[in-house]
Amino acid sequence: MFILVNLKAYPCDPVEVAEAARDVAEESGVRIAVSPQAAHIERVAETGVETWAQHVSPNDHGSYTGSTLAEAVADAGAEGTLLNHSENRLKLADIDASLDAAERAGLETCVCGNNPEQIGAVAALGPDSVAVEPPELIGGDVSVSTADPDIVVDAVDAAGAVDESVDVYCGAGVSTGDDVLAAQDLGATGILLASGVAKAADPRAALKDLVAGL
Amino acid sequence: MFILVNLKAYPCDPVEVAEAARDVAEESGVRIAVSPQAAHIERVAETGVETWAQHVSPNDHGSYTGSTLAEAVADAGAEGTLLNHSENRLKLADIDASLDAAERAGLETCVCGNNPEQIGAVAALGPDSVAVEPPELIGGDVSVSTADPDIVVDAVDAAGAVDESVDVYCGAGVSTGDDVLAAQDLGATGILLASGVAKAADPRAALKDLVAGL
Amino acid sequence: MFILVNLKAYPCDPVEVAEAARDVAEESGVRIAVSPQAAHIERVAETGVETWAQHVSPNDHGSYTGSTLAEAVADAGAEGTLLNHSENRLKLADIDASLDAAERAGLETCVCGNNPEQIGAVAALGPDSVAVEPPELIGGDVSVSTADPDIVVDAVDAAGAVDESVDVYCGAGVSTGDDVLAAQDLGATGILLASGVAKAADPRAALKDLVAGL
Amino acid sequence: MFILVNLKAYPCDPVEVAEAARDVAEESGVRIAVSPQAAHIERVAETGVETWAQHVSPNDHGSYTGSTLAEAVADAGAEGTLLNHSENRLKLADIDASLDAAERAGLETCVCGNNPEQIGAVAALGPDSVAVEPPELIGGDVSVSTADPDIVVDAVDAAGAVDESVDVYCGAGVSTGDDVLAAQDLGATGILLASGVAKAADPRAALKDLVAGL
Repeated sequence: MFILVNLKAYPCDPVEVAEAARDVAEESGVRIAVSPQAAHIERVAETGVETWAQHVSPNDHGSYTGSTLAEAVADAGAEGTLLNHSENRLKLADIDASLDAAERAGLETCVCGNNPEQIGAVAALGPDSVAVEPPELIGGDVSVSTADPDIVVDAVDAAGAVDESVDVYCGAGVSTGDDVLAAQDLGATGILLASGVAKAADPRAALKDLVAGL
Repeated sequence: MFILVNLKAYPCDPVEVAEAARDVAEESGVRIAVSPQAAHIERVAETGVETWAQHVSPNDHGSYTGSTLAEAVADAGAEGTLLNHSENRLKLADIDASLDAAERAGLETCVCGNNPEQIGAVAALGPDSVAVEPPELIGGDVSVSTADPDIVVDAVDAAGAVDESVDVYCGAGVSTGDDVLAAQDLGATGILLASGVAKAADPRAALKDLVAGL
Repeated sequence: MFILVNLKAYPCDPVEVAEAARDVAEESGVRIAVSPQAAHIERVAETGVETWAQHVSPNDHGSYTGSTLAEAVADAGAEGTLLNHSENRLKLADIDASLDAAERAGLETCVCGNNPEQIGAVAALGPDSVAVEPPELIGGDVSVSTADPDIVVDAVDAAGAVDESVDVYCGAGVSTGDDVLAAQDLGATGILLASGVAKAADPRAALKDLVAGL
Repeated sequence: MFILVNLKAYPCDPVEVAEAARDVAEESGVRIAVSPQAAHIERVAETGVETWAQHVSPNDHGSYTGSTLAEAVADAGAEGTLLNHSENRLKLADIDASLDAAERAGLETCVCGNNPEQIGAVAALGPDSVAVEPPELIGGDVSVSTADPDIVVDAVDAAGAVDESVDVYCGAGVSTGDDVLAAQDLGATGILLASGVAKAADPRAALKDLVAGL
């Protein structure tokens, strides 16, 4: 299982979370990455943790003021990027072009979608992975195992029908180690989570709990 | 073959084109539809021609000022709608929701994409048809048969791999009857065109030429 | 006072509201307009009521699929247009260009903003009128006279400081005749309302109440 | 005069330009800032040069994946931010909210607009400075002194009519020291430039030339 901790625009200390994630990954052998604000990528990457961008723009080098250039985040230390998160929905053509940009910059990619149809659609664009974010689970306290788990199963099927090599992550409804195991049982090979770690009183303890059963 | 004439925001008389399309469709037996500005749907539909919207918004009834409500265009006489035209690119989640809105309102749907990967993606969302708009052919004088025709073949394959029931139209590079036949030979079951009819000195003659070989 | 009834994407019968607005305007001498979906402009205008678009796009004639061309809504019968409604926020440069488009098509313009600073900003772009939409009043049951009325006074001042010829309308918190009088007392020369008429069991009675005190 | 060097998404070395700008600012006493990609703010700021963001999002801390949080760029070392650059046009309401976000984070602000009307509009939102980007001068070789200089004069007047404390910068048509002097003569108190430095074979020499006449 791959655990990707999205720091969004939360008021946490990105370096504190990054160091905890680095240590827990080393101790447990579980792959863990942290996705901070673009302006914090450099300091997060310097901790040694695997670092992801939260977004990259579809453009190449050029006259694109205010863009998030794939090469710039890679240069600052990012190894992957989220795309089309439910808080940052993109035009289909821009997902396509951002995937090209990420590939050009050597970034691993994970494209989000909020139902199995959208997961099938983004899988067709050739990302490394996709993350299904069931709307009823986003930002809530309902775990993926108690809410309708079929959406994860259906997302795995939808992605597999289009491209068998695409990993499917569970993008909501995960905050405990039991949720991680539930997601794994449903066919997910990774999870995206945010507040469960970023807003935790003790991020290190939260991360240890997440990997405890793996 | 289905011929869909997109009037965009061209300064043509939509009723003149509609009447010509209606007559040529009746005379030739070829299915022809006209897609005017939303404000002109009612007068175009009243000619008896098959009428399409150029876009519908993802929303349902409600507080959505300035939206293009699917039920409103259907009520005015539209029988179908384009979505995600290259001049009106949509967020992936909005294509998904606009397809739901169109279905709710009883509208046939055609979602555009500009390469085979995007065609595979939109086919996964369950539209009635998709239209591939090869960038090198949009708005130009190059016919689909002289430009790289593989993009149409690849789009047909990409859509078919995802959903065999989805029709694939050729969305650029068609302005003559020969181009229509070329598109048909490449596997397209319809064509989208705009200036070839809307900007023609004699739209009726242009339409007659388009269907001449069918 | 000018009363502009925005039908948004509500499931009301636009012609029924239009006929009521036409009759109440004639009987009372109060200026009343109706703003329906673009696809319904023609049938609303045919009732004889003053008809407004809910939005026009910044573009001129040309290759703009899915746009709402100012000339098309004018041609269908619109005499004015809203712009930048809180449900349809526009880029600053697009407000500027849409105002040019509306002027080109002979449409009267009303640009919305949700605080006095934004009202000052849009007044600087040269519209015929502006409408302040206090966020705490949008879509609610709180009347403009019981909520903080200073925002309307401040909006009138902000617009006047930039351009004294710009009318200022009250864009929220109006559902009764008393609210209309309260808005007038605060310096507004018109009101925008929606659900108070569009969702009323008896739109005609609602309109009569609105103009009763004028 | 304030010289703000926008690195856009150019393939330059941001640290090389930053060090040159820092040195030329120190030697000449002219205020010079550099605006890199968000992911490069930290390394640029560490050179000691005044550093600006190219954009900040309208949101506060919270669930805003992919946003450019004002606090994050400030924390990384930015002292100011551009907003609404012609390559990154914003909704009016978002300019307003991004100005609030920048102020909250202690960032100086410069909002762009491409004609005197838009400059008046953005000045009404209370930024520290505005930059007029005459469309005919953007990215071109035409200097502000040879193209129609009235647009800069009119922008200075438009901003002053709304808020006398707002600085007006010239956002296009400047690539040489003579252009800087011409902008100053027209009433600008600063200039925005990009390729003239970022794409120069010798950025240090380009910067020296820009400040030579001041």
